[in-house]
Order: sequence, then C-alpha cells, then structure tokens
Amino acid sequence: MTEMNQLSRRGLLAGSAALVLAGVVPAVAATAARSAVDQGSVDVVVVGAGLAGLTAARALEAAGRSVAVLEARDRVGGRTYDVPLGSGQGVVELGGQWIGPGQTAIAALAKSLGVSTFETYSTGNSIYGYGGSYQAYSGAIPPASPAALVELQLTVTRLNQLATAVPADTPWTAPGAAGYDEQSIRGWIDANNQTAEARFLLGLAIRAVYGEDASQISLLDLLAQITGVGGDVQTLTGAAQSTRFVGGPQQLSAGLARRLHRPVQLSCAVSGIDRGDVLTVHHAKGVVRARRVILTAPKPVLARLSFRPELPPAYSQYLQRQPMGATTKVEVVYATPFWRAAGLNGGVVSDLSPVEVVFDNSPPSGTPGVLVAFLEGNQSRAYFASTPAQRQAAVLACLVAYFGPAAAHPTRYLEKVWATDPYTLGAYGTFNPPGVLTSLGAATAGPADNIYFAGDGYSGEWPGYMEGAVRSGDRAARAVITAG
Amino acid sequence: MTEMNQLSRRGLLAGSAALVLAGVVPAVAATAARSAVDQGSVDVVVVGAGLAGLTAARALEAAGRSVAVLEARDRVGGRTYDVPLGSGQGVVELGGQWIGPGQTAIAALAKSLGVSTFETYSTGNSIYGYGGSYQAYSGAIPPASPAALVELQLTVTRLNQLATAVPADTPWTAPGAAGYDEQSIRGWIDANNQTAEARFLLGLAIRAVYGEDASQISLLDLLAQITGVGGDVQTLTGAAQSTRFVGGPQQLSAGLARRLHRPVQLSCAVSGIDRGDVLTVHHAKGVVRARRVILTAPKPVLARLSFRPELPPAYSQYLQRQPMGATTKVEVVYATPFWRAAGLNGGVVSDLSPVEVVFDNSPPSGTPGVLVAFLEGNQSRAYFASTPAQRQAAVLACLVAYFGPAAAHPTRYLEKVWATDPYTLGAYGTFNPPGVLTSLGAATAGPADNIYFAGDGYSGEWPGYMEGAVRSGDRAARAVITAG
Repeated sequence: MTEMNQLSRRGLLAGSAALVLAGVVPAVAATAARSAVDQGSVDVVVVGAGLAGLTAARALEAAGRSVAVLEARDRVGGRTYDVPLGSGQGVVELGGQWIGPGQTAIAALAKSLGVSTFETYSTGNSIYGYGGSYQAYSGAIPPASPAALVELQLTVTRLNQLATAVPADTPWTAPGAAGYDEQSIRGWIDANNQTAEARFLLGLAIRAVYGEDASQISLLDLLAQITGVGGDVQTLTGAAQSTRFVGGPQQLSAGLARRLHRPVQLSCAVSGIDRGDVLTVHHAKGVVRARRVILTAPKPVLARLSFRPELPPAYSQYLQRQPMGATTKVEVVYATPFWRAAGLNGGVVSDLSPVEVVFDNSPPSGTPGVLVAFLEGNQSRAYFASTPAQRQAAVLACLVAYFGPAAAHPTRYLEKVWATDPYTLGAYGTFNPPGVLTSLGAATAGPADNIYFAGDGYSGEWPGYMEGAVRSGDRAARAVITAG
Repeated sequence: MTEMNQLSRRGLLAGSAALVLAGVVPAVAATAARSAVDQGSVDVVVVGAGLAGLTAARALEAAGRSVAVLEARDRVGGRTYDVPLGSGQGVVELGGQWIGPGQTAIAALAKSLGVSTFETYSTGNSIYGYGGSYQAYSGAIPPASPAALVELQLTVTRLNQLATAVPADTPWTAPGAAGYDEQSIRGWIDANNQTAEARFLLGLAIRAVYGEDASQISLLDLLAQITGVGGDVQTLTGAAQSTRFVGGPQQLSAGLARRLHRPVQLSCAVSGIDRGDVLTVHHAKGVVRARRVILTAPKPVLARLSFRPELPPAYSQYLQRQPMGATTKVEVVYATPFWRAAGLNGGVVSDLSPVEVVFDNSPPSGTPGVLVAFLEGNQSRAYFASTPAQRQAAVLACLVAYFGPAAAHPTRYLEKVWATDPYTLGAYGTFNPPGVLTSLGAATAGPADNIYFAGDGYSGEWPGYMEGAVRSGDRAARAVITAG
C-alpha cells in the first residue's frame, strides 16, 4: 500500500469556534420561549448547517426558493470544528481537515470563499511501529516485511479490480453484489492475506478510512467507495489527506452561512416532522412549515427524529442499520515541532494502542508544533469509559514511544470524542454493515415523498469526506428544484 | 435439518385486543392534558408493558418496591398481539405465539395465570415447494435432494459443534470469537454448502429464526443463540414452534398487569430521561422520578429516546447497531380448515415468494380454519411499498399454489407489518450485525449507571422468544433489588 505515511483520515470531522462564527447572524428565534412559536412557511426547510445543508441552501436560494436552515448546535459546520490556537497562530481542526486530488467541489467552494490551502508537512522521515520496534523510513512505503508488502500490493490490485464493476451510487446493481455484501471487509482481508503484518496494516487502513473496525463493514461498501473516489483504494488511504485549509475548514460553512438571505437558526434542534403535502417541522424554538425538507444530520441522529406518520418502513429500517464509526481525534500542542529537528515529519503508522496514526498538524507557520493523533474504532472505544486524564496519558505514552520524552510535555491537549456528541454520535461517518446495501439500498435511494436526504453519507462520490457533503447538498437542491 | 416442517417462528410477536385487556385498569393519567403533570416518585420506573417489563414489575413489587409501568401503546403485551375471531371462536395471534420444550419460565408463568396450552395441528402431510414443484411429505424431513440433505445435516452438526465453545451471555469471550464475528451467517453458509437447495433451505431457516436475511447477521450471534436454547440449532427451527396458548399469549401480559398493585399507565410513550442519582422520566402525560429505570422497549425504539446527559458512548453506539428484523405476519381465515380433508396439516416450506413458511393456525376447535403465513426479511421488504390489497393478492397466490383454489377465498384476512409499528419497528427481534458483539458486547453487558435493560434482546437464553423476555425481566428485577 503506497503512501502509507499518509494513511488516515477522512475530511469530514467538523465543529466551531466563536471567532470563526462571528459573522453568523444570531438565530431568528434565539430569544423565543420554549413554547411552539409559529414561524410560518418557507419553500424548503434544511435541517443541519454543515457543508451539505449550507450548500443545498445556497443553491436553493440561488434558484429563488425561500429556505429556513435549522441547526441544532450553537454553531455551523457540523463535523468541521476548528479551535483557535490563540495569538493569531491559526487553528487546529478537531473535525474534518484534509482535501486532496479529485475533490473538485470542496476546492471550488474554498476558492469562491477566498479560503486558501497549504500542504500537510511531510519533509523528513515517518515512523513505522510494529511488534515493539519503531523505525524511521522515507517515502510512501513503510518498512513492513517483504511478504507483507507483496500481499498488500496484491490486495490493492484485487480491490481496485473488484471495484471496477461496482457503481458508487447503486452498488446493489453490481454483478456479484450479494456475494460482496455478505462479507465483512475483515473477513475478506483474512481470506486473502496470510501474514499477520499485512492483516494488521489493512485493518489499520480500514479504521483510518471509516473510523471503524473492518469486521463491521460490508465489502460492498468499500468497493463502492473505491469507485466513488475514482477507482483506486490508495486514494482513500493516501492523497485524500494531502492538503489543509489555512484557518481551517469550518470557515467554509461560516462563509456559506453569512451569504444566505435568511440567517441560519442556531440552537434549533429538530425533534420531529409531521408529514403530509405540507411538512411541519418541530424544533426547539417553534414550528416551521414547508413543502419540502432536506435532512442532513448523520443517519443515527435522523433515526431519533419523530416522524408522524412514521417514515415508510424501508427508510425506518435503513436508519436502524447506518451506524457511525468511533473516532476520537486528539490535537497535542507543543512549543515547537521538535520532531522536525530530528528529521521526522510527524507521520506515524503503528500497532501500539490506542494511537495508530499520527500526523504533523502544525499551522503553516510551524509554530506552535502540533501532532494530530487518531483513536479509531475499537481503539477509541477502549477508552470510552476512561477519564480524559487517563485517555491523555495513554495518548502521550504512544507519542513518547514514537517521538521520545519531549512528547510527554505538551503545552495544550485537545480532544473530541465524537461518539459523545449528541448531534453527531460518532465519526468519521456512517457505513453499511453486511447485507444492508443489497436489502435496503434500492428502496431508500430517493426521497421519502417530499423529504430529501443529503450529507456525506448520502453521497456515492466521496462519502465520509467534505467533498461528499458538498456534492450531496448540491444534488439534493437540484432534486428539490426539479420537483418544483 | 430435521423438523423442517416446524421451521419458523419465534415466539415474540405481540399485541392487544380490547377483550383481553378488559381487566386492565385505565391509566392513572389517562385524561391528563399534555402539560407535564408531576407524578412524583417511585422506586423503579419500568418502560414497556410487554412480558419483560411486566415480569420485572411483578418481581419488584413482590420485593416491596413501588413501581410505575409506562406503556406507549393503549394496550399491554408488546409483541404479543391477539385478535379475537368473534363468536367465542378464540383468537389469532398477530405476534408471538409458540412455545416449546425448555421454555420453562413462560410455561410456569402461563400455569400460574391459568392459561392452558394446546399443540399446533400437525396431522397429515406438509408441503415442500422448490423450483416450481410442490410435494406433500410426512415426517420432519422435507424431500430435498439427497445431496442437499447431506449438506444440511453436516451443517447442523458443524453449527452445534461450534456453539459448544460460545457462551450465550458472553459470546465475545469464546475462543475464536473474532473469527466468527467477522462473518455473516450467509457468508458462512455459502462457504460450507455447495448445493443451491441447501443454501436456500438454510437461508430460509435463518429468516424464520430472525425475520432477517442471513447476510446481515453475525455468525457469532447465531452460535450464542444455539447455546442459549440448549445447544441444538434444530430447537430454533423446530420444537420451539410446537405449542400454543388457548386464548392467545397476550393473556399473559394482561394477567400480569391485572395483578400489579399500581396499574400500568397506557398511552404513556416515554420521550426522554434526565439522568442522575434520581432519574426523571418524561412521558406523554407527565414526568415521574425514580432511583432506577428498567427499559424494555426494542433497541431501535430505545435509540430514539432523548437522554440528558447522553447515555455513555458505548451504549449509544451499541443502540445504533441493533436493528430489528423485517417480518410481516398474516392470518388467513377460512370457513373450515379445508386442507385437513386433503390430508394436509397446513405446513409449508417453499421457495415461492413472498410466503416461504405456513402453518395451520386454527383455534383448538378447528373452526374456523386459519393459516398463518410469514413474510420474512427481504421477502417482507419486497412488499413494503405495496398496498395492503397487493400484498394480500401476493400472499393468496402463494396459498393457492400450496393448497389449491379454495385458498383464494378466505372469510377474513389479517396482517401486521411490524416494521411500521412505531413502538416495535420490526420483528421478530434485534440481532447483532457482524463485528458488533466483539466490539461493544462487553462494554454494554450491564446497566448504564442506574438504567437497566430487559427484553428478549437482552437475554442470552432464548433471545427473540417470549421465554427470553420473561427471563430478562426477572433478571433485571433481581439486579435492581440487589443494587438496593
């Protein structure tokens, strides 16, 4: 697997800093009492002010529609969530952060909003840890055993070959779809790789893509996603993590929100929707009616909404089968990026728990030094019941193993356990367990009457990435506009 | 697979008939306005008045605890739901109905309440349909090809052997658990059976046990369940469907409810729980506080509740991964059980969609004649978007293929699409998709602080059966009593 030092992290973790959001107009009903204030009617209600919802709202307004955007949080950005380092030193991203080649929609959005990009620091050697030893290496291929490297390359070739017949948007139509869908990625990996090291590295790669262990995910989901990023699984594990936004990606949502005619309503968690030719959306501050609704919250959050009448049963059963991964994202701040002086680029791939993947995440200036560490799938869950101090100690122990004793003394430590966030419920995104795409994919591919769905998890192209969110928002808006 | 003519149906579908419920005292707050009436405090709040909740409430009251039982529906019984045939002819069960050997708790409960049992009608031949031909056969083994029958017997032996090392309550501790859990049952079946007919019959058996296609379910879940019913997979597909209750199983819940000191509160759907040393339970008619809560609703229904603060993340992530199966249960009533005169017992195992499994479901008197037909997993979902008339036509077409033209003219046709029921969301029960037990089983095996869980889906013994519900209710009550 080439570019293993880039192994990791999808772009779709999000969030908000007050500074970034200064331009967002206060919610219309921010001071309303909890009684149901009737906010009248709009053409379209958009639930969720992340990249999908805001992209959809922008497109709808451009087409002359009146749009109410309801956001549960007190900020926009969803799974993009940036925290300022202070003193004008930029931000660290506790949510989505990277883009890469082929991600044209998010790049165009950033350009239109005047947000510039920079490359993830990559000068020098990465570190590979396996079986208790840690080696520095240069280039894209970690110094695994030759047997493991041969298996990895064969596996990449096989996956890409299988994916050629799997459409990203309708994977259930692929020849042999049922056979792929009855296997977990883990089962397939184990059947096709004999070395423990290849199995480990592939499992780590899957955790890095989904934030979830390969045992839970359908092989058909992975094949569809390979197609959805252009046909090469190495895009998922490599180049998709190459580029960052100066000032952080949450600016994109803030910029979109600022430009809407009607301000985003913050702290407006939606509790339910009365379905009919006119939809009545109940939220924390009142009710608003519309002929169409676009839902963009993560699917397990949608599964909590009260629909009256219930959603058609296929949608209801589908939402029971769309879990979020389990990523904890950690930003560790040091006075300087001390590893650079040692010829290291901050990148780590390792079998030491719980931090298997690290990157240099310093701002463009290189000051302060920041390492971003990921706990993914069961590596993250192993610390769900720990105190923040215990989790921090475990993370720092890994960083000391990788970078030496200087790593034990950060100036600041930030973490986001996404599974505890009630409006996200996990990270990076949702995935399809075995058997779900072939059972329920076709029946839930379109809107539920006049309720439309968007968000990265509803995008065949770049699901789990900011790119997928933007594309899904545009697509949902087009569908609503076409429907009249 | 022996006793294939008994293939099917777990006991845990439930519901309610006004007649049966005549003894239930009206809800305390039935006439309260929707404002939050403060109902004060009890020792324990039990959410759900099915067999698990009512069993727990009985045990708690017996131990001197004050208990408030809150039920979302206007009836007790949960997934037991009986409909009277009128004129004193008994009931048909649109929910759970059968018990069998080894189900000691539910049998004892029935005995204590004076509810008697009778055997499912089984005199005469069953029908086996495969590849467009239909054959009558006697005994337990359908006339599949010899090659398929050999494979089936080997598969039964293999499954029972594998299950010996898998504990029902803690399957994640089994040697090799990760290897079983990374496979779907479908994947394992296909790897171990070569004939299309054996694969079909095994897939049908799994649908009959879970109401779900084998591609969605972890092999480890099945192995644990085999242990949980005594070690033989044939118990699941055979004897567990042997015995019915005179007057229907919903009487058991009605009888339990009648005997409680404090009446069940009906039409009291719980919306959320404020967590703390004292729990505040918000429901449709008010709020009630308690030091402990036992939740017994199906897991996807629990996933909709609003907990403040959120449940610990392991529980939240677990509830995202516990879907309900997709069974539609149909009762077709005829003036007489005309098939008996033709030497048939009403039993069918067939590959004709959507009705693969049928039983004689006439009341003890044999008048009227009733056939119960099951649509399970994707066979059920294929008709989610159909009108009731279309679904009825498809069901009757199957019955005509099995029993001749007389089957086209029922006097009554009743169905329950359990996936559309907002307080159940599917049937027969929940199951573990691949990778879930080994990722989240251990972390969620106990209470979440002072919130306890019961229901068949929380029972290692007889999950998916009325038996499991009763055992889980007793166990949760004991845990609460022990906790003090």
